[in-house]
Amino acid sequence: MPKIVDHDERRREVLTAASRVIVRDGIDAATTRAIAKEAGYSNGVLAHYFTDKDEILLSALRQSHQHIRERLARKVDAASGLAALRELLLDNLPLDAERTQETRLEVSFWSRSLASERLAEVQRAEAAELRSAVRDLLGQARAAGELTSDQSLDDLTEQFLALVDGLSLHLLLYPDRLRRADLERLLLRFVDQVITDISG
Amino acid sequence: MPKIVDHDERRREVLTAASRVIVRDGIDAATTRAIAKEAGYSNGVLAHYFTDKDEILLSALRQSHQHIRERLARKVDAASGLAALRELLLDNLPLDAERTQETRLEVSFWSRSLASERLAEVQRAEAAELRSAVRDLLGQARAAGELTSDQSLDDLTEQFLALVDGLSLHLLLYPDRLRRADLERLLLRFVDQVITDISG
Repeated sequence: MPKIVDHDERRREVLTAASRVIVRDGIDAATTRAIAKEAGYSNGVLAHYFTDKDEILLSALRQSHQHIRERLARKVDAASGLAALRELLLDNLPLDAERTQETRLEVSFWSRSLASERLAEVQRAEAAELRSAVRDLLGQARAAGELTSDQSLDDLTEQFLALVDGLSLHLLLYPDRLRRADLERLLLRFVDQVITDISG
Repeated sequence: MPKIVDHDERRREVLTAASRVIVRDGIDAATTRAIAKEAGYSNGVLAHYFTDKDEILLSALRQSHQHIRERLARKVDAASGLAALRELLLDNLPLDAERTQETRLEVSFWSRSLASERLAEVQRAEAAELRSAVRDLLGQARAAGELTSDQSLDDLTEQFLALVDGLSLHLLLYPDRLRRADLERLLLRFVDQVITDISG
């Protein structure tokens, strides 16, 4: 009798193995061979599920984002406006082991995207979703009177996303200079600063 | 008669070639062979000046930072405090072709540094210099009464540096979403926001 294979499960296993290799050894080291070895499958099995290495890498990035979205949905739950925005932004910082792995994965894709248009396209689509979520929450905050800043929602969104990525990166690169508590404080202070800012 | 070789000049040529390869093809593609080809020298000539590929990459990063420091010294010249800080922060954004290349080089090193302690050490030392320059200018601004925020100089410094790197990255990754004029506006607005912010 042929063995029954759960293809979705196997696909997930390969992607999780790929993420582990990228996070541990760097994205350069994440060859198809290294990923197959980490997952405990042959190159042939991988070839059955993915056309090439880029497809594995991109699917691993999407899987990580899907996981983040599901976690965040549980966290914000009934919250809206500024409270939900704070949760979303904090959730994007590497404040625990899981999110540190996620940030390492993210940073690994940044430089890679600069050299590959195919990766860049997927990265842009994924980033657009996050951008739109932040913008929507800012819109809710403004409607609820929580946001008195006269800056455009687009500008506020870009400032928040830039700060989140900059702080996340710096915690990974400069662990002696910044700690997790610093990141949280700096982000929350920034939110307070900009939401009430009126130019002039 | 033996040919007279200008070793410093040759070293600079190799590093400039290395930067070109990293910026154009990505840091993965910057093999010793590719760098030698780009520079028009043999692998043997490169081996005479550098012990290995990492040394070439790190020297290229340092050369870029040295160039940035010299340019900045010319720009700020007699300025101090907030005026000099604004110049320094803007100079770190990819607002023209030259600085776009510099930012691409920088981003390429971020993920690489996460996988290599040797690269990470150099990156940290270089970043510490920039951090200290920003902090000094903030100190001057406070002494001159230009900075009324009650945040610590360390916190302000980290916020500025995070925003600069986040905005720079996002311009490269999302060129359809952000333009150079946006970056400049977002950064200057942020400076105005935080320098006058009093908590509470």
